[in-house]
Amino acid sequence: MEEDDEFMARALSAARRASSHDDVPVGCVVVVDGCVVGEGENRREVDGDPTAHAEMVALRAAAGARRGWRLDDATVYVTLEPCVMCAGALLAARVRRLVIGAMDPKAGAAGSRYNVLSDPRLLHEVSLRYDVGAAPSVALLQDFFAARRGGGQASTSG
Amino acid sequence: MEEDDEFMARALSAARRASSHDDVPVGCVVVVDGCVVGEGENRREVDGDPTAHAEMVALRAAAGARRGWRLDDATVYVTLEPCVMCAGALLAARVRRLVIGAMDPKAGAAGSRYNVLSDPRLLHEVSLRYDVGAAPSVALLQDFFAARRGGGQASTSG
Repeated sequence: MEEDDEFMARALSAARRASSHDDVPVGCVVVVDGCVVGEGENRREVDGDPTAHAEMVALRAAAGARRGWRLDDATVYVTLEPCVMCAGALLAARVRRLVIGAMDPKAGAAGSRYNVLSDPRLLHEVSLRYDVGAAPSVALLQDFFAARRGGGQASTSG
Repeated sequence: MEEDDEFMARALSAARRASSHDDVPVGCVVVVDGCVVGEGENRREVDGDPTAHAEMVALRAAAGARRGWRLDDATVYVTLEPCVMCAGALLAARVRRLVIGAMDPKAGAAGSRYNVLSDPRLLHEVSLRYDVGAAPSVALLQDFFAARRGGGQASTSG
């Protein structure tokens, strides 16, 4: 869907902001009825907060804007497959649908290491679409880590 | 260990605060070198925030107090087994040890539905101790749900 490409492009813009403050470039937007209600980039390093992954920042912003924790009409766009924490947060917010850019084979919890979003034993399931804007997401991550290997300090993804 | 009982009692006090603002009573404390560096209770309803489970609130407070996201010298005490999100947050913060009160057979991710804290494929593992203060934790949860069935509105655990 064209709409998915458009919102993933916006998530990629958010990811670029993360690089600008020396955080691993991952970005996320939360969309309801075609409007962005929450947006965020990974802020772990700049905020010194282990929970400040892009998805968490965007979900908290969306819940604040909607004045409630239940986001069951939302579609979430994220440039990199969520980790266990962020996939769990999508469940906790009862998100309807998730669109993923690149996969994270080492730590992804939406199909790679686990798929907690499609487990009928849990209280909620999230509809998934993969591989939207994967190439620019991977390029952004590769550039970030290459630059750090070149001159900066080593870092690990959340 | 006596210290574990003492800190779990403090986590139970935090859980009681959650009931007072009509949130499912779960509490958490984060301890480093015998001192509480972060504390929190479930605030999902009162804050309208899907991520505001007790563990998340306590980890964010601890990271703020320590001025950094890495809590690898911390022991976390929680009155109810963490969900997927909160177990993932313990990994994200590189927490050393987790002490659990009651288990959550439906949604627990530290031994019940999943055990993401003891998975050598992930980037980090957390040492676990179960069944410290389980009975008062269960009693608190049962009283909360019984009172709501009696007169209030239904609620679900995070």
